[in-house]
Amino acid sequence: MTGTPLPMRVPAAGLPARVRIHEVGPRDGLQNEKTTVPTDVKAEFVHRLAAAGLTTVEATSFVHPKWVPQLADAEDLFPRLADLHDAGDVHLPVLVPNTRGLERATALGARRVAVFASATETFARRNLNRSVDESLAMFAPVVAAAKADGLHVRGYLSMCFGDPWEGAVPLAQVVRTARALADMGCDELSLGDTVGVATPGHVAALLTALADDGLGADTRSTISVHFHDTYGQALANTLAALQHGVTTVDASAGGLGGCPFAKSATGNLATEDLVWMLQGLGVETGVDLDRLVATSVWMAERLGRPSPSRTVTALSHKE
Amino acid sequence: MTGTPLPMRVPAAGLPARVRIHEVGPRDGLQNEKTTVPTDVKAEFVHRLAAAGLTTVEATSFVHPKWVPQLADAEDLFPRLADLHDAGDVHLPVLVPNTRGLERATALGARRVAVFASATETFARRNLNRSVDESLAMFAPVVAAAKADGLHVRGYLSMCFGDPWEGAVPLAQVVRTARALADMGCDELSLGDTVGVATPGHVAALLTALADDGLGADTRSTISVHFHDTYGQALANTLAALQHGVTTVDASAGGLGGCPFAKSATGNLATEDLVWMLQGLGVETGVDLDRLVATSVWMAERLGRPSPSRTVTALSHKE
Repeated sequence: MTGTPLPMRVPAAGLPARVRIHEVGPRDGLQNEKTTVPTDVKAEFVHRLAAAGLTTVEATSFVHPKWVPQLADAEDLFPRLADLHDAGDVHLPVLVPNTRGLERATALGARRVAVFASATETFARRNLNRSVDESLAMFAPVVAAAKADGLHVRGYLSMCFGDPWEGAVPLAQVVRTARALADMGCDELSLGDTVGVATPGHVAALLTALADDGLGADTRSTISVHFHDTYGQALANTLAALQHGVTTVDASAGGLGGCPFAKSATGNLATEDLVWMLQGLGVETGVDLDRLVATSVWMAERLGRPSPSRTVTALSHKE
Repeated sequence: MTGTPLPMRVPAAGLPARVRIHEVGPRDGLQNEKTTVPTDVKAEFVHRLAAAGLTTVEATSFVHPKWVPQLADAEDLFPRLADLHDAGDVHLPVLVPNTRGLERATALGARRVAVFASATETFARRNLNRSVDESLAMFAPVVAAAKADGLHVRGYLSMCFGDPWEGAVPLAQVVRTARALADMGCDELSLGDTVGVATPGHVAALLTALADDGLGADTRSTISVHFHDTYGQALANTLAALQHGVTTVDASAGGLGGCPFAKSATGNLATEDLVWMLQGLGVETGVDLDRLVATSVWMAERLGRPSPSRTVTALSHKE
């Protein structure tokens, strides 16, 4: 074996020239890991991700500490990212569940925030303790206040494909909720396959239904996709999304985010597996894969378990 | 959580109505596992795979036992599959490296055989101790004899995308070797991404180049794809292949086939991950996913390590 294997660059028709990766490892990833990581390690993680070329790194969440103890140090962490934030090369969005969270985030100078809605009633009840419409009503003033302050707002929409309690989620239900978030003023919508059940035809159908409603690549609200690899479908679904005009993809370095089931199972699509595919397709991401893999190996050591990313595993064991 | 999650059936445009899965677990899978499995277990494995609805199960290899000690029991195993073989519902191809292997296989009544060629010189030298042209010359009389006996012949072509020693493999080099196998009389060609480096644009480009040479879905030699999931690309590559007319896909139950690197890494595309996607896409396979998962869980227990298949992991830990 000689040198680092790299995917051969063979572009495919109909794909974007560039994809922006929305890195969710420090927030969505660490929030779902059993181990709580020290603030110093989180700060170094975000810096390493930025140094690897990721330009959007979701940094933390300003939820109540009792809900997400893994991210209870948001106030402590965010100022440690000031160099990145002030330089302006890297976006550092943060999750805000309500007006209180928004105030905490903006007090520290956050310029990008995200709210987290559900496309299904059951998950809205379980995750937000509200109906879908009640949760949208809760987010409306948050988004309005953020927009009044000139912030960029992302609206997460979870359970866009299947829901463990409700089964298949009707397209119209997702479109209705996405439309509500867009009408509130969200600059970007992230369509989440929270339980990882989607397949490429479903992805294409949802993106088509959203485009039919005026939500899509050429409209005011950018569409991002957020796939989980629970059934191994995340990258195939991403390919389908790229073929349908999506140019922003959520991913988690090293596949951080775990899974309640098993050590080797994964939650989020691994950023490295995504970058491998995009490099091979000749789609620009600006990411240095070797530095990213080194970062995920380093973080896996901090977490005391191997990365579930296939690419991290393969490249970190190369001769 | 309620019941077994199943992918929602949402067909996508431009895909085949039905895909034939060429199951390679008992041969390509077990050949690359450290543990040598008793013949009884192998026989039960093949029977279980057939009971799960797989109609083509590559059963074993008639190579010299010193080369592949894991499959040294081919003479003992094959007769134990006589019930499946005689009923005719399940094809049981076997690998034959040379005329001696073919004779051993046909003496036991095998009706389908496969030869194993390389698209690159370095792998041909390392795996077959011959140049590409010398190995093709070795296979020609094997294929001719098999065809004279009325057998169905598959030609494996490894290193079709990247080679660890030679890097990117030129499309023309793959087309030339594929053409040689087709001209010999192979009924089916299996294009192997032996080291798992391919990405979807490369897959599309190779299938287009083969079609330009008259090799493809509508020609005499069926094209199958054989992806390894080393970098997590196997299912996305399979989607690209289906979009380019391929209707036969190689996969290994539970992702059997291992990887020299790490326990959780995988060699072959897991049949379950493939079936999940195809079910979601509304593509018929005839496979009962629950029975297949149960089979892979059973085999993983025999091998003493968990399956690297995401779908097996998720479904076998469901509540």
